[in-house]
Amino acid sequence: MTRTSSQKSVKVEGILMKNSLKVAMVVIGDEILNGRTTDLNANWLAKFLFKEGMLLTSTQFIRDNESEIIETLNRALNEADIVITSGGIGPTLDDMTKKCLAKMFDKKIIENQTVIPVVEENYRRFGRSWNPSLNFYHHFPEDFLAINNPKGLAPGLGFYLADRKKLLLSGPGVPREFHDMVSLEFFPMIQKYFSGQFVKNYQTIVRTHSVPEEKIFGELEPELWSKLENFGKVSSLPHTIGIDIIISYHGTEENHQLTQNKIKDIFEQSKMQEYVWQYGNLSLSELILKKAVEKKLTFGFAESCTGGLTSSKFTDLSGSSACFMGSIVSYDNSIKEKLLGVSPETLKSFGAVSEQTVKEMCQGGKKVLNVDICVAITGIAGPTGGSAEKPVGTVYFGVHSKLGTQFETTVVPGDRPRKKDRFSDRALLLLLEEIEKL
Amino acid sequence: MTRTSSQKSVKVEGILMKNSLKVAMVVIGDEILNGRTTDLNANWLAKFLFKEGMLLTSTQFIRDNESEIIETLNRALNEADIVITSGGIGPTLDDMTKKCLAKMFDKKIIENQTVIPVVEENYRRFGRSWNPSLNFYHHFPEDFLAINNPKGLAPGLGFYLADRKKLLLSGPGVPREFHDMVSLEFFPMIQKYFSGQFVKNYQTIVRTHSVPEEKIFGELEPELWSKLENFGKVSSLPHTIGIDIIISYHGTEENHQLTQNKIKDIFEQSKMQEYVWQYGNLSLSELILKKAVEKKLTFGFAESCTGGLTSSKFTDLSGSSACFMGSIVSYDNSIKEKLLGVSPETLKSFGAVSEQTVKEMCQGGKKVLNVDICVAITGIAGPTGGSAEKPVGTVYFGVHSKLGTQFETTVVPGDRPRKKDRFSDRALLLLLEEIEKL
Repeated sequence: MTRTSSQKSVKVEGILMKNSLKVAMVVIGDEILNGRTTDLNANWLAKFLFKEGMLLTSTQFIRDNESEIIETLNRALNEADIVITSGGIGPTLDDMTKKCLAKMFDKKIIENQTVIPVVEENYRRFGRSWNPSLNFYHHFPEDFLAINNPKGLAPGLGFYLADRKKLLLSGPGVPREFHDMVSLEFFPMIQKYFSGQFVKNYQTIVRTHSVPEEKIFGELEPELWSKLENFGKVSSLPHTIGIDIIISYHGTEENHQLTQNKIKDIFEQSKMQEYVWQYGNLSLSELILKKAVEKKLTFGFAESCTGGLTSSKFTDLSGSSACFMGSIVSYDNSIKEKLLGVSPETLKSFGAVSEQTVKEMCQGGKKVLNVDICVAITGIAGPTGGSAEKPVGTVYFGVHSKLGTQFETTVVPGDRPRKKDRFSDRALLLLLEEIEKL
Repeated sequence: MTRTSSQKSVKVEGILMKNSLKVAMVVIGDEILNGRTTDLNANWLAKFLFKEGMLLTSTQFIRDNESEIIETLNRALNEADIVITSGGIGPTLDDMTKKCLAKMFDKKIIENQTVIPVVEENYRRFGRSWNPSLNFYHHFPEDFLAINNPKGLAPGLGFYLADRKKLLLSGPGVPREFHDMVSLEFFPMIQKYFSGQFVKNYQTIVRTHSVPEEKIFGELEPELWSKLENFGKVSSLPHTIGIDIIISYHGTEENHQLTQNKIKDIFEQSKMQEYVWQYGNLSLSELILKKAVEKKLTFGFAESCTGGLTSSKFTDLSGSSACFMGSIVSYDNSIKEKLLGVSPETLKSFGAVSEQTVKEMCQGGKKVLNVDICVAITGIAGPTGGSAEKPVGTVYFGVHSKLGTQFETTVVPGDRPRKKDRFSDRALLLLLEEIEKL
């Protein structure tokens, strides 16, 4: 939700975007448009440009077709200060970006001697050596700049249109190559050619849980949005466990620190205080790891309906073995009984998805995993298995530590993978809260 | 890899695309261009259109800006037969698609009585009722068709330009809503308006493992690619565990069955035979579920470096509880000892990442989980923890069933999440092979 209706918000957006350099992105490749490959560069570039204070005005995916490439690039150059392309700079026949760029600017493709050292260096980084019999990397449009590829072999292309003050930059389609070429090579070139024409964007991020957007800005704190708008552009982004509130502004590092503190004060004096789980941009897992290591706490999970997802999410983090010991994925009731010690009577009387079962799961899990905290999850991920009393999406969480046993229950919407996602993030939030209490 | 260099391949592509309807996609929303939201509709639509025999010619991401929206849609309508938009049909002020469409075609936005039943039905599906005080969903451009939203509240918009024989369809930005609206609502409309103007694309998919692309078409079967090209357009798509070889062609259902059988014969008489794990398009998990249920087998995992991901992937499938009992996520060695019965001497002498440990893990896992098959995974997901002898990416798999214990080891590239992904898919493949043997 971006509330651009008020005068103030429009004004702030104006301030934010006044000096912004406009960038247009063009992604080239049949494989994107027939669905065989998913583009992973558009969103990455969008985030990168936003952070650096530039304005991405459009992104277009087009086919390996000469006339379409040339037409699209010409239009993009009319609309933006900088055009960045991804894809089609490799050595095979369907890589046509180089040929199209030459044609667009009426340049010959020549055996360009200035390109050879760049290509040789790209190869050297992979422990290989290049020679002209390998490919046509050294055949390059005259007057174009060959750009270092820090993670790959094919050189990028750069061309500055001095008369129109526009810059055209062409990088590879492979994401890791594109990301490095943009941040390490393209960005310094942009800073050089457009020096002083853009300012860094800063963001203060307030991560909240358990309250929907309408309730935050409607019922609880109707003045909050406009208070925050005094600092910059406000937006809100829903996540699995709650809403991130993001305030974006230009300025200096020092100013950014002051603004962060002022925004924190506003939240701490509001009804939202108890729903903030972080002033900052760490993920749930990152924050859990940080705090658990500080407090020297260990933990594990007893997972039923999430099937191991909670544990897997946390172990995506390098260093997670410092506090995560292990988990029991007790999908079948026999595993709940045998490994977690849930009593057959509990399962029989209350069912696997119940307060009683989840409490026994986390108590048993703490014991068997020998950890400081165990979080248990049992629910109905669906689409089948629901009842009138316990519909699909019903979930129980249990947390057990030396502070005792707590539980909560809720009903979560979405399809099966989305439910698992929400269940597991909620379990991580409860773990974080328990770590903070201990 | 698409080998479009040979005459034959170009010819086949020509046949394939001759009659194709052209579609242009426009994704509308500031949140896409500033990077806060990742578009998940472009790749989905690309795959959908390819499968149905339509040709996606371009996808463009643009901002919530009236003149840019109108200009882009006009251009798209000139270039394609069908224009599909995603985003901006909701009730908030920055949802401008409806307004722009009205302006483009010089239509008034009226309280459109034909829209009300569609909105009411959308609400009813969520167990809610709609009335005009809630939002302006019933304010709709005159002569536009309101389209059912099977997974959401906001109606889609449809407009057929009879004189130009073009169709404009606007759907929501939320992926699950967009996907259902396209497949359940837009597609039947396209079939109606363009009946006979496109032919279904059929595909025969051969899923292989363990052999890289170059080896398949170079060393093992240099003639395979051209043999397959007799049936249609050939492409190959790398996955975590191997290569999918896809042959696409037009025709009838009957023809498709014949072609599938002929292609199967070619593979069964080739050196690739032993590397095919499926003639078909099921996922690993789907195929495992199908075969395990047929053979009434149960299984579970003993996961170390994958941290629960293997179990989580399998339980993404509805019905997985029929054969998956549960898992031990034995991240810490103490859990390997206590719950899986790995001997402290084994861990001390050979390390957690070793043949000996993985064998004891799967043997202990089978016992404690009381299953027919247990697959164990232990490895180094990195980026730290590697050594000269066992570099980051080293992984051991163990499989234990009544047939005995087997193990294998390999080294896998990629960053940490990608390694976990490859480790867990390989574990699922080994499970599938064991199920087939039993």
